[in-house]
Amino acid sequence: MITLYGSMHSRANRCAWMLKELNVDFHHEPTNFLDGSTHNPEFLQLNPNGRVPALMDDDLKLFESLAINLYLAKKFGGPLSPADMGEDALMTQWTLWAVTEIEKPLLLAAANNVLFDESSRSQDEFAIALQKLSRPWGVLDKHLSQHSHIVGNRFSVADLNIASVMTLVPIAAIDLSPWPALDKWLKVSLERPAASDWKHVSFRIPRPATQLGMLSMFI
Amino acid sequence: MITLYGSMHSRANRCAWMLKELNVDFHHEPTNFLDGSTHNPEFLQLNPNGRVPALMDDDLKLFESLAINLYLAKKFGGPLSPADMGEDALMTQWTLWAVTEIEKPLLLAAANNVLFDESSRSQDEFAIALQKLSRPWGVLDKHLSQHSHIVGNRFSVADLNIASVMTLVPIAAIDLSPWPALDKWLKVSLERPAASDWKHVSFRIPRPATQLGMLSMFI
Repeated sequence: MITLYGSMHSRANRCAWMLKELNVDFHHEPTNFLDGSTHNPEFLQLNPNGRVPALMDDDLKLFESLAINLYLAKKFGGPLSPADMGEDALMTQWTLWAVTEIEKPLLLAAANNVLFDESSRSQDEFAIALQKLSRPWGVLDKHLSQHSHIVGNRFSVADLNIASVMTLVPIAAIDLSPWPALDKWLKVSLERPAASDWKHVSFRIPRPATQLGMLSMFI
Repeated sequence: MITLYGSMHSRANRCAWMLKELNVDFHHEPTNFLDGSTHNPEFLQLNPNGRVPALMDDDLKLFESLAINLYLAKKFGGPLSPADMGEDALMTQWTLWAVTEIEKPLLLAAANNVLFDESSRSQDEFAIALQKLSRPWGVLDKHLSQHSHIVGNRFSVADLNIASVMTLVPIAAIDLSPWPALDKWLKVSLERPAASDWKHVSFRIPRPATQLGMLSMFI
Protein backbone atom coordinates (compact mmCIF):
# COMPACT_ATOMS: atom_id res chain seq x y z
CA MET A 1 0.00 0.00 0.00
CA ILE A 2 1.28 3.43 -1.00
CA THR A 3 0.52 6.57 0.98
CA LEU A 4 1.41 10.01 -0.35
CA TYR A 5 1.70 12.75 2.26
CA GLY A 6 1.33 16.40 1.32
CA SER A 7 -1.27 18.92 0.27
CA MET A 8 -1.76 19.24 -3.50
CA HIS A 9 -0.70 22.87 -3.07
CA SER A 10 2.77 21.51 -2.24
CA ARG A 11 5.28 19.60 -4.33
CA ALA A 12 3.21 16.51 -3.51
CA ASN A 13 1.37 17.29 -6.75
CA ARG A 14 4.52 16.16 -8.57
CA CYS A 15 4.18 12.69 -7.05
CA ALA A 16 0.39 12.56 -7.50
CA TRP A 17 1.02 13.20 -11.20
CA MET A 18 3.42 10.25 -11.34
CA LEU A 19 1.09 7.91 -9.44
CA LYS A 20 -1.81 8.84 -11.74
CA GLU A 21 0.30 8.32 -14.88
CA LEU A 22 1.14 4.85 -13.57
CA ASN A 23 -2.49 4.09 -12.62
CA VAL A 24 -1.37 3.17 -9.13
CA ASP A 25 -3.92 3.26 -6.32
CA PHE A 26 -2.71 5.29 -3.38
CA HIS A 27 -3.94 6.75 -0.15
CA HIS A 28 -3.54 10.51 0.14
CA GLU A 29 -2.83 12.37 3.39
CA PRO A 30 -3.00 16.13 2.78
CA THR A 31 -0.33 16.91 5.39
CA ASN A 32 0.27 20.66 5.43
CA PHE A 33 2.90 22.93 6.95
CA LEU A 34 0.28 25.63 7.55
CA ASP A 35 -1.45 23.67 10.35
CA GLY A 36 1.83 22.32 11.76
CA SER A 37 1.16 18.74 10.72
CA THR A 38 4.54 18.45 8.94
CA HIS A 39 6.14 18.81 12.37
CA ASN A 40 4.04 16.28 14.28
CA PRO A 41 6.29 13.67 15.91
CA GLU A 42 4.55 10.97 13.85
CA PHE A 43 5.26 12.75 10.57
CA LEU A 44 8.87 13.45 11.57
CA GLN A 45 9.35 9.68 11.89
CA LEU A 46 8.46 9.49 8.22
CA ASN A 47 10.40 12.55 7.06
CA PRO A 48 12.78 14.01 9.65
CA ASN A 49 13.07 17.14 7.51
CA GLY A 50 9.47 18.07 8.33
CA ARG A 51 8.66 18.68 4.68
CA VAL A 52 6.18 17.36 2.17
CA PRO A 53 5.88 15.36 0.07
CA ALA A 54 6.79 12.10 1.71
CA LEU A 55 5.79 8.65 0.57
CA MET A 56 5.40 5.34 2.34
CA ASP A 57 5.42 2.11 0.33
CA ASP A 58 4.99 -0.67 2.87
CA ASP A 59 8.12 -0.25 5.01
CA LEU A 60 9.98 2.09 2.67
CA LYS A 61 9.84 5.76 3.69
CA LEU A 62 10.93 8.31 1.11
CA PHE A 63 11.23 12.07 0.78
CA GLU A 64 12.37 14.39 -2.05
CA SER A 65 9.58 14.57 -4.64
CA LEU A 66 11.72 13.91 -7.70
CA ALA A 67 13.50 10.94 -6.10
CA ILE A 68 10.10 9.53 -5.20
CA ASN A 69 9.11 9.79 -8.87
CA LEU A 70 12.27 8.04 -10.07
CA TYR A 71 11.52 5.24 -7.59
CA LEU A 72 7.89 4.92 -8.66
CA ALA A 73 8.92 4.77 -12.33
CA LYS A 74 11.35 1.94 -11.65
CA LYS A 75 9.00 0.06 -9.34
CA PHE A 76 5.98 0.07 -11.62
CA GLY A 77 7.72 -0.02 -15.03
CA GLY A 78 6.16 0.77 -18.38
CA PRO A 79 7.01 3.57 -20.81
CA LEU A 80 7.70 6.17 -18.09
CA SER A 81 10.41 3.96 -16.61
CA PRO A 82 14.05 3.65 -17.70
CA ALA A 83 14.44 0.71 -20.10
CA ASP A 84 18.08 0.11 -19.19
CA MET A 85 20.98 1.44 -17.11
CA GLY A 86 21.81 4.13 -19.67
CA GLU A 87 18.26 5.51 -19.62
CA ASP A 88 18.25 5.34 -15.83
CA ALA A 89 21.43 7.46 -15.83
CA LEU A 90 19.97 10.02 -18.26
CA MET A 91 16.62 10.29 -16.42
CA THR A 92 18.48 10.82 -13.14
CA GLN A 93 20.83 13.32 -14.80
CA TRP A 94 18.00 15.47 -16.20
CA THR A 95 16.20 15.31 -12.85
CA LEU A 96 19.23 16.65 -10.98
CA TRP A 97 19.76 19.21 -13.74
CA ALA A 98 16.23 20.58 -13.26
CA VAL A 99 17.02 21.16 -9.59
CA THR A 100 20.48 22.66 -10.06
CA GLU A 101 19.72 24.80 -13.11
CA ILE A 102 16.03 25.70 -13.07
CA GLU A 103 14.22 25.43 -9.75
CA LYS A 104 15.65 28.37 -7.78
CA PRO A 105 15.93 31.01 -10.55
CA LEU A 106 12.42 30.08 -11.71
CA LEU A 107 11.10 30.64 -8.18
CA LEU A 108 12.79 34.05 -8.12
CA ALA A 109 11.31 34.94 -11.51
CA ALA A 110 7.86 33.76 -10.43
CA ALA A 111 8.12 35.68 -7.14
CA ASN A 112 8.74 38.90 -9.01
CA ASN A 113 6.11 38.27 -11.68
CA VAL A 114 3.23 37.01 -9.55
CA LEU A 115 3.98 35.49 -6.13
CA PHE A 116 5.11 38.63 -4.30
CA ASP A 117 2.60 41.42 -3.71
CA GLU A 118 2.56 43.70 -6.70
CA SER A 119 4.07 46.58 -4.74
CA SER A 120 7.09 44.53 -3.69
CA ARG A 121 8.10 43.03 -7.05
CA SER A 122 11.45 43.93 -8.59
CA GLN A 123 11.94 44.13 -12.35
CA ASP A 124 15.69 43.86 -11.82
CA GLU A 125 15.34 40.59 -9.90
CA PHE A 126 12.97 39.27 -12.56
CA ALA A 127 15.54 40.19 -15.22
CA ILE A 128 18.48 38.47 -13.51
CA ALA A 129 16.36 35.38 -12.88
CA LEU A 130 15.43 35.21 -16.58
CA GLN A 131 19.05 35.77 -17.50
CA LYS A 132 20.08 32.75 -15.38
CA LEU A 133 17.28 30.67 -16.89
CA SER A 134 18.20 31.55 -20.46
CA ARG A 135 21.16 29.18 -20.45
CA PRO A 136 19.41 25.99 -19.26
CA TRP A 137 16.24 26.88 -21.17
CA GLY A 138 18.36 27.34 -24.31
CA VAL A 139 19.88 23.90 -23.73
CA LEU A 140 16.46 22.33 -23.24
CA ASP A 141 14.94 24.13 -26.23
CA LYS A 142 17.70 22.90 -28.51
CA HIS A 143 17.38 19.36 -27.15
CA LEU A 144 13.61 19.40 -27.72
CA SER A 145 14.00 20.81 -31.22
CA GLN A 146 15.98 17.65 -32.02
CA HIS A 147 14.09 15.07 -29.90
CA SER A 148 10.38 14.58 -29.22
CA HIS A 149 11.03 14.02 -25.50
CA ILE A 150 13.84 14.29 -22.95
CA VAL A 151 14.97 10.65 -23.09
CA GLY A 152 14.10 7.78 -25.43
CA ASN A 153 11.53 9.49 -27.69
CA ARG A 154 8.62 8.91 -25.32
CA PHE A 155 7.10 10.67 -22.31
CA SER A 156 9.03 9.41 -19.29
CA VAL A 157 9.81 10.29 -15.69
CA ALA A 158 12.47 12.67 -17.06
CA ASP A 159 9.80 14.76 -18.84
CA LEU A 160 7.52 14.53 -15.84
CA ASN A 161 10.16 15.61 -13.34
CA ILE A 162 11.38 18.58 -15.40
CA ALA A 163 7.84 19.68 -16.33
CA SER A 164 6.70 19.40 -12.72
CA VAL A 165 9.51 21.77 -11.66
CA MET A 166 8.31 24.12 -14.42
CA THR A 167 4.64 24.36 -13.37
CA LEU A 168 5.63 27.80 -12.07
CA VAL A 169 5.93 28.95 -15.71
CA PRO A 170 2.16 28.96 -16.37
CA ILE A 171 1.32 29.78 -12.73
CA ALA A 172 3.46 32.91 -12.96
CA ALA A 173 2.60 33.67 -16.60
CA ILE A 174 6.23 33.61 -17.72
CA ASP A 175 6.66 33.95 -21.49
CA LEU A 176 8.50 31.01 -23.04
CA SER A 177 8.09 32.19 -26.65
CA PRO A 178 11.87 32.76 -27.05
CA TRP A 179 12.23 28.98 -26.57
CA PRO A 180 9.51 27.60 -28.88
CA ALA A 181 10.30 23.88 -28.70
CA LEU A 182 10.45 24.08 -24.90
CA ASP A 183 7.24 26.11 -24.81
CA LYS A 184 5.36 23.53 -26.87
CA TRP A 185 6.76 20.55 -24.95
CA LEU A 186 5.85 22.11 -21.60
CA LYS A 187 2.27 22.96 -22.68
CA VAL A 188 1.68 19.44 -24.00
CA SER A 189 3.23 17.85 -20.88
CA LEU A 190 1.19 19.92 -18.42
CA GLU A 191 -2.06 19.17 -20.28
CA ARG A 192 -1.75 15.43 -19.69
CA PRO A 193 -4.83 14.33 -17.73
CA ALA A 194 -2.72 12.88 -14.90
CA ALA A 195 -1.01 16.24 -14.39
CA SER A 196 -4.05 18.30 -13.51
CA ASP A 197 -3.37 18.80 -9.78
CA TRP A 198 -0.82 21.56 -10.44
CA LYS A 199 -3.70 23.73 -11.71
CA HIS A 200 -5.05 24.02 -8.18
CA VAL A 201 -1.81 25.45 -6.84
CA SER A 202 -2.31 28.98 -5.66
CA PHE A 203 -0.01 30.71 -3.24
CA ARG A 204 1.63 34.00 -2.45
CA ILE A 205 5.03 34.58 -0.89
CA PRO A 206 5.58 37.53 1.44
CA ARG A 207 8.70 39.39 0.32
CA PRO A 208 11.39 39.25 3.02
CA ALA A 209 11.99 42.65 4.57
CA THR A 210 15.73 42.73 3.81
CA GLN A 211 18.18 41.71 1.08
CA LEU A 212 19.66 39.28 3.59
CA GLY A 213 16.21 37.74 3.95
CA MET A 214 15.94 37.44 0.17
CA LEU A 215 19.26 35.60 0.02
CA SER A 216 18.13 33.31 2.82
CA MET A 217 14.83 32.53 1.08
CA PHE A 218 16.32 31.69 -2.29
CA ILE A 219 19.53 29.79 -1.50
CA MET B 1 36.38 3.13 -22.10
CA ILE B 2 35.48 5.87 -19.63
CA THR B 3 36.64 9.46 -19.98
CA LEU B 4 36.10 12.00 -17.20
CA TYR B 5 36.19 15.64 -18.28
CA GLY B 6 36.92 18.40 -15.81
CA SER B 7 39.77 19.85 -13.80
CA MET B 8 40.21 18.36 -10.32
CA HIS B 9 39.57 21.89 -9.02
CA SER B 10 35.99 21.46 -10.27
CA ARG B 11 33.22 19.11 -9.20
CA ALA B 12 34.96 16.52 -11.40
CA ASN B 13 36.79 15.53 -8.22
CA ARG B 14 33.47 14.06 -7.01
CA CYS B 15 33.46 11.63 -9.95
CA ALA B 16 37.20 10.90 -9.72
CA TRP B 17 36.56 9.86 -6.11
CA MET B 18 33.84 7.45 -7.26
CA LEU B 19 35.93 5.98 -10.08
CA LYS B 20 38.85 5.44 -7.70
CA GLU B 21 36.60 3.79 -5.07
CA LEU B 22 35.43 1.42 -7.80
CA ASN B 23 38.97 0.75 -9.07
CA VAL B 24 37.85 1.65 -12.59
CA ASP B 25 40.48 2.74 -15.12
CA PHE B 26 39.56 6.01 -16.78
CA HIS B 27 41.04 8.62 -19.03
CA HIS B 28 41.06 12.12 -17.55
CA GLU B 29 40.68 15.30 -19.60
CA PRO B 30 41.25 18.34 -17.34
CA THR B 31 38.76 20.52 -19.25
CA ASN B 32 38.58 23.91 -17.56
CA PHE B 33 36.29 26.89 -17.81
CA LEU B 34 39.21 29.27 -17.19
CA ASP B 35 40.77 28.62 -20.62
CA GLY B 36 37.41 28.44 -22.41
CA SER B 37 37.63 24.71 -23.12
CA THR B 38 34.20 24.03 -21.58
CA HIS B 39 32.74 26.10 -24.43
CA ASN B 40 34.59 24.48 -27.34
CA PRO B 41 32.11 23.14 -29.92
CA GLU B 42 33.48 19.64 -29.36
CA PHE B 43 32.88 19.81 -25.60
CA LEU B 44 29.39 21.28 -26.07
CA GLN B 45 28.51 18.16 -28.06
CA LEU B 46 29.28 16.22 -24.91
CA ASN B 47 27.67 18.62 -22.43
CA PRO B 48 25.54 21.37 -24.01
CA ASN B 49 25.54 23.19 -20.66
CA GLY B 50 29.23 23.98 -21.05
CA ARG B 51 30.01 22.75 -17.56
CA VAL B 52 32.27 20.17 -15.99
CA PRO B 53 32.27 17.41 -15.03
CA ALA B 54 31.04 15.38 -17.96
CA LEU B 55 31.62 11.71 -18.53
CA MET B 56 31.68 9.54 -21.62
CA ASP B 57 31.25 5.79 -21.31
CA ASP B 58 31.45 4.43 -24.85
CA ASP B 59 28.42 6.12 -26.46
CA LEU B 60 26.78 7.33 -23.26
CA LYS B 61 27.37 11.02 -22.52
CA LEU B 62 26.52 12.23 -19.03
CA PHE B 63 26.62 15.44 -17.02
CA GLU B 64 25.66 16.35 -13.41
CA SER B 65 28.38 15.00 -11.11
CA LEU B 66 26.09 13.27 -8.62
CA ALA B 67 24.03 11.57 -11.35
CA ILE B 68 27.29 10.34 -12.88
CA ASN B 69 28.20 8.80 -9.52
CA LEU B 70 24.84 7.06 -9.16
CA TYR B 71 25.32 5.64 -12.67
CA LEU B 72 28.87 4.46 -11.95
CA ALA B 73 27.73 2.78 -8.72
CA LYS B 74 25.02 0.86 -10.55
CA LYS B 75 27.20 -0.02 -13.53
CA PHE B 76 30.15 -1.39 -11.56
CA GLY B 77 28.32 -2.82 -8.54
CA GLY B 78 29.86 -3.82 -5.23
CA PRO B 79 29.25 -2.36 -1.78
CA LEU B 80 28.94 1.25 -3.00
CA SER B 81 26.03 0.29 -5.24
CA PRO B 82 22.36 -0.09 -4.31
CA ALA B 83 21.59 -3.72 -3.50
CA ASP B 84 17.92 -3.41 -4.49
CA MET B 85 15.25 -0.97 -5.66
CA GLY B 86 14.66 0.32 -2.14
CA GLU B 87 18.33 1.16 -1.63
CA ASP B 88 18.43 2.74 -5.10
CA ALA B 89 15.52 4.97 -4.05
CA LEU B 90 17.19 5.96 -0.76
CA MET B 91 20.58 6.66 -2.36
CA THR B 92 18.90 8.83 -5.00
CA GLN B 93 16.79 10.55 -2.33
CA TRP B 94 19.80 11.50 -0.17
CA THR B 95 21.67 12.68 -3.27
CA LEU B 96 18.85 15.05 -4.25
CA TRP B 97 18.54 16.11 -0.61
CA ALA B 98 22.21 17.14 -0.51
CA VAL B 99 21.59 19.41 -3.50
CA THR B 100 18.31 20.91 -2.31
CA GLU B 101 19.24 21.34 1.37
CA ILE B 102 23.01 21.74 1.64
CA GLU B 103 24.87 22.80 -1.50
CA LYS B 104 23.84 26.46 -1.87
CA PRO B 105 23.76 27.56 1.80
CA LEU B 106 27.12 25.82 2.31
CA LEU B 107 28.58 27.76 -0.61
CA LEU B 108 27.29 31.01 0.94
CA ALA B 109 28.77 30.07 4.32
CA ALA B 110 32.10 29.14 2.72
CA ALA B 111 32.15 32.35 0.68
CA ASN B 112 31.84 34.42 3.82
CA ASN B 113 34.32 32.35 5.85
CA VAL B 114 37.11 31.88 3.29
CA LEU B 115 36.27 32.18 -0.41
CA PHE B 116 35.55 35.91 -0.58
CA ASP B 117 38.38 38.36 0.08
CA GLU B 118 38.61 39.00 3.79
CA SER B 119 37.49 42.61 3.40
CA SER B 120 34.27 41.63 1.60
CA ARG B 121 33.01 38.88 3.94
CA SER B 122 29.74 39.36 5.81
CA GLN B 123 29.17 37.90 9.26
CA ASP B 124 25.44 38.32 8.76
CA GLU B 125 25.46 36.25 5.56
CA PHE B 126 27.59 33.62 7.26
CA ALA B 127 25.08 33.50 10.11
CA ILE B 128 22.00 33.09 7.89
CA ALA B 129 23.77 30.40 5.86
CA LEU B 130 24.58 28.49 9.06
CA GLN B 131 21.02 28.97 10.23
CA LYS B 132 19.72 27.37 7.01
CA LEU B 133 22.22 24.54 7.31
CA SER B 134 21.32 23.80 10.93
CA ARG B 135 18.08 22.04 9.91
CA PRO B 136 19.52 19.56 7.37
CA TRP B 137 22.70 19.11 9.37
CA GLY B 138 20.58 18.35 12.43
CA VAL B 139 18.69 15.74 10.41
CA LEU B 140 21.92 14.18 9.15
CA ASP B 141 23.55 14.26 12.59
CA LYS B 142 20.61 12.46 14.14
CA HIS B 143 20.57 9.89 11.32
CA LEU B 144 24.31 9.25 11.75
CA SER B 145 23.98 8.96 15.51
CA GLN B 146 21.63 6.03 14.85
CA HIS B 147 23.27 4.49 11.74
CA SER B 148 26.92 3.94 10.81
CA HIS B 149 26.30 5.20 7.27
CA ILE B 150 23.63 6.92 5.19
CA VAL B 151 22.08 3.76 3.69
CA GLY B 152 22.57 0.07 4.43
CA ASN B 153 25.24 0.26 7.16
CA ARG B 154 28.15 0.48 4.70
CA PHE B 155 29.93 3.25 2.80
CA SER B 156 27.95 3.72 -0.42
CA VAL B 157 27.38 6.22 -3.20
CA ALA B 158 24.96 8.00 -0.82
CA ASP B 159 27.79 8.75 1.64
CA LEU B 160 30.13 9.64 -1.21
CA ASN B 161 27.69 12.04 -2.87
CA ILE B 162 26.77 13.87 0.35
CA ALA B 163 30.37 14.01 1.59
CA SER B 164 31.57 15.28 -1.80
CA VAL B 165 29.07 18.16 -1.58
CA MET B 166 30.46 18.86 1.90
CA THR B 167 34.16 19.13 0.98
CA LEU B 168 33.59 22.87 1.41
CA VAL B 169 33.32 22.27 5.18
CA PRO B 170 37.04 21.55 5.68
CA ILE B 171 38.07 23.84 2.79
CA ALA B 172 36.29 26.74 4.47
CA ALA B 173 37.14 25.65 8.04
CA ILE B 174 33.49 25.50 9.10
CA ASP B 175 33.01 24.15 12.60
CA LEU B 176 30.80 21.04 12.71
CA SER B 177 31.24 20.40 16.44
CA PRO B 178 27.54 21.16 17.17
CA TRP B 179 26.78 18.06 15.03
CA PRO B 180 29.28 15.51 16.39
CA ALA B 181 28.06 12.39 14.55
CA LEU B 182 28.04 14.30 11.26
CA ASP B 183 31.46 15.78 12.03
CA LYS B 184 32.97 12.35 12.63
CA TRP B 185 31.30 10.74 9.61
CA LEU B 186 32.48 13.54 7.30
CA LYS B 187 36.08 13.42 8.54
CA VAL B 188 36.25 9.63 8.12
CA SER B 189 34.61 9.81 4.66
CA LEU B 190 36.92 12.53 3.36
CA GLU B 191 40.02 10.68 4.60
CA ARG B 192 39.31 7.68 2.39
CA PRO B 193 42.31 7.23 0.05
CA ALA B 194 40.12 7.46 -3.08
CA ALA B 195 38.82 10.87 -1.96
CA SER B 196 42.11 12.74 -1.89
CA ASP B 197 41.57 14.96 -4.96
CA TRP B 198 39.34 17.38 -3.04
CA LYS B 199 42.41 18.40 -1.01
CA HIS B 200 43.88 20.10 -4.06
CA VAL B 201 40.86 22.34 -4.52
CA SER B 202 41.79 25.94 -3.97
CA PHE B 203 39.77 28.82 -5.26
CA ARG B 204 38.53 32.28 -4.43
CA ILE B 205 35.26 33.88 -5.47
CA PRO B 206 35.12 37.61 -6.18
CA ARG B 207 32.21 39.10 -4.25
CA PRO B 208 29.59 40.49 -6.64
CA ALA B 209 29.41 44.28 -6.47
CA THR B 210 25.69 44.42 -5.65
CA GLN B 211 23.06 42.55 -3.62
CA LEU B 212 21.39 41.71 -6.94
CA GLY B 213 24.66 40.13 -8.04
CA MET B 214 24.77 38.12 -4.82
CA LEU B 215 21.27 36.81 -5.44
CA SER B 216 22.21 35.92 -9.01
CA MET B 217 25.34 34.06 -7.91
CA PHE B 218 23.69 31.96 -5.22
CA ILE B 219 20.30 31.01 -6.68
